[in-house]
Amino acid sequence: MKQKGSRVERELVKMLWDADCAAMRAPGSGGATKKPLPDIIAGNGKIYLAIEVKTTSADHIYIPSEKISGLKEFSKIFGAEPYLGAKFKNKKWRFVHVDELAKTRGENYKVTVDLAFSIGLEFDELIGRDKQVKF
Amino acid sequence: MKQKGSRVERELVKMLWDADCAAMRAPGSGGATKKPLPDIIAGNGKIYLAIEVKTTSADHIYIPSEKISGLKEFSKIFGAEPYLGAKFKNKKWRFVHVDELAKTRGENYKVTVDLAFSIGLEFDELIGRDKQVKF
Repeated sequence: MKQKGSRVERELVKMLWDADCAAMRAPGSGGATKKPLPDIIAGNGKIYLAIEVKTTSADHIYIPSEKISGLKEFSKIFGAEPYLGAKFKNKKWRFVHVDELAKTRGENYKVTVDLAFSIGLEFDELIGRDKQVKF
Repeated sequence: MKQKGSRVERELVKMLWDADCAAMRAPGSGGATKKPLPDIIAGNGKIYLAIEVKTTSADHIYIPSEKISGLKEFSKIFGAEPYLGAKFKNKKWRFVHVDELAKTRGENYKVTVDLAFSIGLEFDELIGRDKQVKF
């Protein structure tokens, strides 16, 4: 699962660079801090992104509450928009702004394929290439 | 030498977080890209920084030309100010904007203690805490 996560993280980093966004993955270790770090930071001079990446072969993704609060905290301090990057198997990427995530009754977060594809941004929208950008 | 670099990088990451800048070190490996990455990315919502960290017990630092061109390239795409973070032994940090670095005859870059302390920013200036900020 960890390796699968790394693979899609690397895929997204490449997509970002190919789209003229400079992107960097968080260090796997030796990060020097216990502060919450996103999986990927990216910027293109106009938009700054902090992205938590999740991939699954199921039809939904669960994200622990502390992951989302950490992502929000980092993004607020850094000055970035916090997104969940959701890669469902055999589907295109969708990016859900964390403000649009709803908590489950267990106080965690859940994103279904349907939700990701109804409220999530496409890659081009995420990086500001499309007029439908929501921020 | 590599370990010494890591130690001062971690020190700087902590200083940044303590000063309300979110900071992340580059991954040691698995960065997913051969694109040039700075040692540290940091931001506080107003200022975005890409920092190459060098430490030495000598009175000067040499930086290979390709390191500086890589730092400039990353910073331009990402939207960050590119700095050399110089930590001379038993001295405070100084931060020299890469545009202020002069090439040696060998086409690389050299920063002496004297230069770093005459044109370099103090930490507080780097993060915009002081009125003497140069950008």
